[in-house]
Amino acid sequence: MALIVQKFGGSSVADAERVRRVAGIIADTYAEGNDVIVVLSAQGDTTDDLIEKAKEINPNPSKREMDMLMSTGEQISIALMAMCLEKMGLPVISLTGWQIEMKTNSDYSNARIKKISTERIRNEIGKRRIVLVAGFQGVNKYDDITTLGRGGSDTSAVAIAVAMNADVCQIYTDVEGIYTADPRKIPGALKLNEITYDEMLELASMGAQVLHNRSVELAKKYGVEMEVLSSFVRKPGTRVREVMSSVEQRFISGVAKDTNVVSFALMGVKDEPGVAFKIFRRLAMEKINIDIILQSVGRGHTQDISFTVASSDREKAEQVLVANKASIGYEKLNVTEEVAKVSVVGAGMMSNHGVAAAVFEGLYNAKINIIMISTSEIKVSVLVNEADADRAVAAIHAKFFE
Amino acid sequence: MALIVQKFGGSSVADAERVRRVAGIIADTYAEGNDVIVVLSAQGDTTDDLIEKAKEINPNPSKREMDMLMSTGEQISIALMAMCLEKMGLPVISLTGWQIEMKTNSDYSNARIKKISTERIRNEIGKRRIVLVAGFQGVNKYDDITTLGRGGSDTSAVAIAVAMNADVCQIYTDVEGIYTADPRKIPGALKLNEITYDEMLELASMGAQVLHNRSVELAKKYGVEMEVLSSFVRKPGTRVREVMSSVEQRFISGVAKDTNVVSFALMGVKDEPGVAFKIFRRLAMEKINIDIILQSVGRGHTQDISFTVASSDREKAEQVLVANKASIGYEKLNVTEEVAKVSVVGAGMMSNHGVAAAVFEGLYNAKINIIMISTSEIKVSVLVNEADADRAVAAIHAKFFE
Repeated sequence: MALIVQKFGGSSVADAERVRRVAGIIADTYAEGNDVIVVLSAQGDTTDDLIEKAKEINPNPSKREMDMLMSTGEQISIALMAMCLEKMGLPVISLTGWQIEMKTNSDYSNARIKKISTERIRNEIGKRRIVLVAGFQGVNKYDDITTLGRGGSDTSAVAIAVAMNADVCQIYTDVEGIYTADPRKIPGALKLNEITYDEMLELASMGAQVLHNRSVELAKKYGVEMEVLSSFVRKPGTRVREVMSSVEQRFISGVAKDTNVVSFALMGVKDEPGVAFKIFRRLAMEKINIDIILQSVGRGHTQDISFTVASSDREKAEQVLVANKASIGYEKLNVTEEVAKVSVVGAGMMSNHGVAAAVFEGLYNAKINIIMISTSEIKVSVLVNEADADRAVAAIHAKFFE
Repeated sequence: MALIVQKFGGSSVADAERVRRVAGIIADTYAEGNDVIVVLSAQGDTTDDLIEKAKEINPNPSKREMDMLMSTGEQISIALMAMCLEKMGLPVISLTGWQIEMKTNSDYSNARIKKISTERIRNEIGKRRIVLVAGFQGVNKYDDITTLGRGGSDTSAVAIAVAMNADVCQIYTDVEGIYTADPRKIPGALKLNEITYDEMLELASMGAQVLHNRSVELAKKYGVEMEVLSSFVRKPGTRVREVMSSVEQRFISGVAKDTNVVSFALMGVKDEPGVAFKIFRRLAMEKINIDIILQSVGRGHTQDISFTVASSDREKAEQVLVANKASIGYEKLNVTEEVAKVSVVGAGMMSNHGVAAAVFEGLYNAKINIIMISTSEIKVSVLVNEADADRAVAAIHAKFFE
C-alpha cells in the first residue's frame, strides 16, 4: 500500500477507448490498496481545437485569456475520466488547478508553481476516493488561471507528489521507459530499469524528450522517485532516482542525438582579451542559450570562435551578430544547420576515464568526422554532420552496449 | 452613461463570425460611455460536443462531474470573446463563475444562486474594463462547480444585474423582442415595446420561450429592468418591467399556444368529498404539476374529473393513476395528447371584464370547440384540439390586435 501519483498525457486520453484503458490502470492501482492521485493532460484533439478557435478570432491573444481558454482542456479530461471510473463503480472526484489551490506566479502560459494546498486532496484521499487533478494549470495571487507551459502536466504531477509526500510519481507515456538509444532507430537499444535524475536531465535536453526537464529538476530537488512507463503495455518502466540501487556496473545510460542545432562560426576574430565576453554577452542579453563553444588556437593576430545554439534561436542569434559586426570585430560569419549533436550520458562516467576515448574510437571506426567536442561530468557530446548523426549514434551505442 | 448587463446565448456566439458581431455590440455599448458586464453561454456546438463525449463514456454520469464538464463551455466562450475584444483594442477581462464567487447551493445541474461577491467585478469595472462573465455556472460551499440548469445564463445575468444594481439587464436573442403572438405563424403579430414581469411569466410558461421564468422571477423580485432584443438587428427590443410606463391602453400582451400538454380524464369517479384530494395528492407526491383542472357537475353518484399535465409528465402520471385505480375509485381513464393550450395574457385584463368573452367569441366565429377553460387574474387559457391550435391563436389574435 502506497500513495501513488500517476500522470497520463494527451495521447493516453485522446478518445473514449483510451480513456477506458487508462481507467483500467487507475482501477488496478486502486484495487491493490494504494491511494491514487491522477494528473491528466488535455485530450490531444481538444488542445488543437481550442488553438484553432482562438487563432480564427485573434492570432495574438493575451496570454491571460489564452490560459483561460486552454485550461478547459484538462478540465474536460478529468471530468470524462471521473465519469469512466464512476461507471466502473469506483469512488472518484475530479479537481481543477484552482480547487487544489495550485498557486503559481503570474507568468501566464509559462507559470511557475509556488505552493500547493494539500487540504482538499487529503480530505478526498481520506474518503478513499481516487483523486483526478487537472494538470498544466494553476492560479496566481489574483485567482486568475495560469498554465505551466511545455511539460506542464509532468510538472504538476511531480509538484503534487512532492506536496503529498508520495511514494512514486508515475509518468505514463507511449514508450515503455527510457532506452539506451532511440529504439525506433537502434534495434539493439536496451530499456533501463533505472536512471539517475542527472542522467535523465542530460538525456532530456537532447532528443530523448520523454520527460520534461522542469519535472525532473523538481523531482531531484525534493527526492521524489519517478517512473516512466507505458499506458499501452502493462510492465515496469524505468525508475528515475538520485542514486542507482542496482549493483550492476553501468557507465553509460544512453546515447542520443539532437538535430535542432545550428553552428555559428565567427572567422577572423581579433586574438585579444574580452572578445568572447563581447560576443556572448550580446547573445545572453537576447536570452539565447549557447551550447558547445570552440575557440581555436590563435594564428597570428586572429582566431576563430565557433558555438552552437538551438535551431529556434538561429534567426535571433544571426541578427545580433550581424548588427554588432563592427563592435565585435570579425571577418566572416558562417552559419550551418546541417549539424547534429550526439551525446553519451552516464553517471558512471565520472569514475571511468575511458568513456570519451571509446566514443572517439567508435566514431573513428565508422569514419565519422567530429566538428566539435564538449564534455561534462556525466556527458560527452560531439558535433557531427547531420548526415552522419544516425550512424554516429549506432556506432557509439554498439561500442557500449552490443 | 449607465451600468449595463448584456447576455448573449449560445447561438449568438456559435462561431467566429457571430463572436465578432456580438463584440461589435459590446464595443458600441462601451464606446457610449457605459460600464458593461457581459454574460455568455457556451457555443452551441461546444455543448453538443461535450454531451456526446460524456455519453460515449458513461450514459449516466454523476451530476457533479457533468457540471465539471459542461462549465468548460462558457469558459471557452468568455475567453474567445475576450480575445476578439482585445483585437479591437478594448480593455477586457473574462471571469468564471468561481472567480466572481457566484455561490450556489449543491443541487448539481440545477443549482440555485445564493450570493454573488461583487468585489472582483467592481474592481475590474473600476479600471474601465469590459467584464465578461461565464454564465450558467457557480460554485457551492465546497468550491465544487455547479450549473444552474435550463435558462441558467439568463439567471446569471439577472443575478449579476441585481448584485451590481445595474440599470438594465439586456437579454440578446435571435428575435427582436416579445411579440403579441409567434411572428413566424401570425403575420400580424406586433412587437411590444414593454411588458410586465407577470405577463412575461405567463407567456414564458407557454410556448413563448424567449426568457426563462427563473430569470424573470428574479428580475421581478429585485425590480431589475430587463430588455429582450436581437443580436442580429440593431434596434430597441421589449422592456420587461413592473408597471407599464406607456399611457397607451393595452389590455392584452400576447396570445400563445402550448402543445406540450396531455389531458387526462377520469370517468365515473365517486361523487363524494375527498376524491379530488386523493387524486392530486398522489400526483403531487410524484412531483407532477397539474395545470387546468375541470370537475364536472355530478350525475347521480359519479362525476368526471379532467386535468392537464406537461407532456414530459405523461408516463409518470399514467402510472400513478393506474397503480392507484382501486384506492381512487374511477371507472375509466382517458388520456389524449392531441390537445393544445391557447392562452391570452395581459395585465390590463384585471380591469376589463370583456376579455374572456372576446376570446370565446373569436373561437366561436372560427368554429373551434373549447375542451376546458382556465382563468387567472392576467390570463385566459383554453384547451382545444391540437389540430385547431394555430387557427385558435390566429382568431384570438385578430380579435384583439387586427
